[in-house]
Amino acid sequence: MSEELGMTVKKSEKFMDWYYEVLQKAEVVDIRFKAKGFDVYLPTAMRTIREMERLFAEELDAKGHLPVMFPIIIPESNLKTEEEHIKGFAREVFWITHAGANKLEEKFALRPTSETAMYPMYSLWLRSHLQLPMKFYQSGRVWRYETKMTRPLLRPREFRWFETHCAFKTDVDVIKQIEQDMDIFKKIVNDSFCIPFLMIKRTQWDKFPGAEDTYAFETVMPDGKVLQIGTTHDLGQKFAKVFDVKYLDEDGKKKYVYQTCYGPGITRMLGAIVCIHGDDKGLIIPPAIAPVQVVIVPIYTGNTKTEVMKKAGELLGSLAEKDFRVDLDYREQYTPGFKFHEWELKGVPVRIEIGPKDIEKGVVTIVRRDFRERIQVPEEKLEEHLLEVMDSISAQLLKRANERMKIEDAKDLKELKEDLKKGGFVRIEFCGEEKCAEKFKDDTGAEVRGTLFGNETKAKGKCAICGKKAKEVAYVGEGY
Amino acid sequence: MSEELGMTVKKSEKFMDWYYEVLQKAEVVDIRFKAKGFDVYLPTAMRTIREMERLFAEELDAKGHLPVMFPIIIPESNLKTEEEHIKGFAREVFWITHAGANKLEEKFALRPTSETAMYPMYSLWLRSHLQLPMKFYQSGRVWRYETKMTRPLLRPREFRWFETHCAFKTDVDVIKQIEQDMDIFKKIVNDSFCIPFLMIKRTQWDKFPGAEDTYAFETVMPDGKVLQIGTTHDLGQKFAKVFDVKYLDEDGKKKYVYQTCYGPGITRMLGAIVCIHGDDKGLIIPPAIAPVQVVIVPIYTGNTKTEVMKKAGELLGSLAEKDFRVDLDYREQYTPGFKFHEWELKGVPVRIEIGPKDIEKGVVTIVRRDFRERIQVPEEKLEEHLLEVMDSISAQLLKRANERMKIEDAKDLKELKEDLKKGGFVRIEFCGEEKCAEKFKDDTGAEVRGTLFGNETKAKGKCAICGKKAKEVAYVGEGY
Repeated sequence: MSEELGMTVKKSEKFMDWYYEVLQKAEVVDIRFKAKGFDVYLPTAMRTIREMERLFAEELDAKGHLPVMFPIIIPESNLKTEEEHIKGFAREVFWITHAGANKLEEKFALRPTSETAMYPMYSLWLRSHLQLPMKFYQSGRVWRYETKMTRPLLRPREFRWFETHCAFKTDVDVIKQIEQDMDIFKKIVNDSFCIPFLMIKRTQWDKFPGAEDTYAFETVMPDGKVLQIGTTHDLGQKFAKVFDVKYLDEDGKKKYVYQTCYGPGITRMLGAIVCIHGDDKGLIIPPAIAPVQVVIVPIYTGNTKTEVMKKAGELLGSLAEKDFRVDLDYREQYTPGFKFHEWELKGVPVRIEIGPKDIEKGVVTIVRRDFRERIQVPEEKLEEHLLEVMDSISAQLLKRANERMKIEDAKDLKELKEDLKKGGFVRIEFCGEEKCAEKFKDDTGAEVRGTLFGNETKAKGKCAICGKKAKEVAYVGEGY
Repeated sequence: MSEELGMTVKKSEKFMDWYYEVLQKAEVVDIRFKAKGFDVYLPTAMRTIREMERLFAEELDAKGHLPVMFPIIIPESNLKTEEEHIKGFAREVFWITHAGANKLEEKFALRPTSETAMYPMYSLWLRSHLQLPMKFYQSGRVWRYETKMTRPLLRPREFRWFETHCAFKTDVDVIKQIEQDMDIFKKIVNDSFCIPFLMIKRTQWDKFPGAEDTYAFETVMPDGKVLQIGTTHDLGQKFAKVFDVKYLDEDGKKKYVYQTCYGPGITRMLGAIVCIHGDDKGLIIPPAIAPVQVVIVPIYTGNTKTEVMKKAGELLGSLAEKDFRVDLDYREQYTPGFKFHEWELKGVPVRIEIGPKDIEKGVVTIVRRDFRERIQVPEEKLEEHLLEVMDSISAQLLKRANERMKIEDAKDLKELKEDLKKGGFVRIEFCGEEKCAEKFKDDTGAEVRGTLFGNETKAKGKCAICGKKAKEVAYVGEGY
């Protein structure tokens, strides 16, 4: 693979060549399934996703969300109940019209998202204020008929996500929930996936169909483009009113709930992990979610084999007992060099090499995936060194990713265009007008993505795009 | 709920009343979703399924199967490639014909099973004999347009399962795999779900469309009916030939693989667990898969509350540390009696009661869910007693379920009809003719399900149904 790709290449074309190559060689995704935008997830992807989803499920459970599973189909009449919602999704929905040789009485949508599947049930379930807050989540797939060019993991027609759907008494609870959604993202995506993000409050013309407000979690890719990897929506009472989700309050009155929904995108985050952490040797999977954190490669000649394999087996057993996800590559048909290459390609964070000389000295050799630095450590201190190296890799991955999140400030159109060339976010003062943003997008391809959540600064001067009086400080970037 | 239901009721109607009641009250499934045969899985179901699927995934991983995820759609031309396969599934397939306002160029089936999605990729992946055996699995949902009356969990139109798809060099490997599939079923379904089963080789007219042979895992429900909870198929080289799945062998020749596929039905097994283990108080979830294995209910009055809650918290912490799935019911608004009732309904295997007198004596009270027997044990021996009680519950559930698996032998039609009234399997000598079995089914509703795998005894006398010369020993039962 090309040198240092995934770290320094900023030009989209070359970067995408690297991306497709690593997806195939590291057994992440196969794009040859005979339907555009529908990909086959290979073992490296599925095992990593299992760890990613375990972290989300544990965290959502801990925060009082309860797991449910809704059907993947939505009857047409449900989907059409909320007017803005169906308007927003109409062009993106796959329709099931027949079963066997029969035409269905009512056609079904393959769910593009689950509000209209779930809230009619919420209306049946919710009776009393004692049931609030009501917080359910599900993990699964959704389908959107993407009309732009599809891309594996980044813009497919079928993708995996979590979706949580909460109901509350007040709009104060809504904001608290949105803050908690952000905290979950920080804990998992930032700390465990080593992916930094900004939380952007979307413009009014670019929010989730049917929402009062949409907040997007966005990161910056190695080619400088911005990728949305999750969203959380303030639904207000809009859906509650059309789906009749109300409760009997303490004062004896029936009231509509306030709702939020939150959608961490597992498929897109896996794509971000591949792109942001990978390098010229292949994937680098963050230790917290690596399906194999440590691989042991035995190095022997004919007459040292028994001794080396015995020691390798001992190390495997003792590390597994200490809850490392560890594997031993005992395959006889391959050389150590071949094995090093393969495990580097698949992004295993740490490799242990063990040979007769190591055994003699009572040491093992550990090699970290990111810098490929090689150190010898005393066998009895192996565990603490592995933990240290894994922590150091996580910190290093996050640091490198953070370097792309630097935000430039632009005063006028010329500066804005110059800064956008460097990639990532550019902060400007903005008039707040849809027309201004649309014209800018048509000219440059870059979008006014919104304002920063929780830290909205007042604008004092002029809009960097049109020069009119500015209303807010906004973030601009070219999207995926 | 009616007394002792789920243990003694054999009449279908009354049994089904109990079933629907417990599904709703114990928060297993809600059947009010606005599409027939599509149900909403509630937290009790999802948490139990999580444990069930964890056991299967661990076991499949350990046996060298690798996880993948295929799209849920299958282009029509794929599905039609194997002639018998499409003939068998044509009437059961949901069709996606449109996306947005556009008619699709080729329509997609919602997968009823994944052979025709997966094997075109196997054809691309497989090159050399060194890649064999090739063993992949996925966990997810499939859809079948069931035309009989639908039933939640037992006969829905959307259900969860695992499917493994293996490719081998020889047909000897196929039989070994099928034996391993049975061993996995024994280990998980028998030992952990406490569900006994027979493995029946299906008749030639009742096998999986496109298979050489089908083996079904079948259990007996409390109403005496037989329920298929999984299958494994010997596909021979039929699919390999139409999907061109071949490899270069050591001798330099290209050869077609032999294939198997295996489908443990998670949805149906959950239904079996509800029906077979449940009783008049609600669910009983086997300890190995209970999302909550032990619930602690504190019992206090105003002035003992602090002391009791402190002890309850200590117990929670120490049991969680020892890897019990444990919960503490600290809700103030409910009485202990209300809590007992609720946790019994939800099938938690063991309850701990802790009150001031227990603390004084240094004991805790344990109540097992099945017999509701109450014992006091010294606090320092709590862990070992809990393990003992959970083992005893598992053994007891399996024992009770096994009592329904007793097989009657019938010599002639009169005996057969009499024995069928008792429910479960009846063993007969059988002529092996489809017409004879079909006529019997039309008359009685019961089916000749097939012969016993691995222990096929030769028939010596006459067919119990038609009186002609018998060819095999077959098992008869009324199916779900």
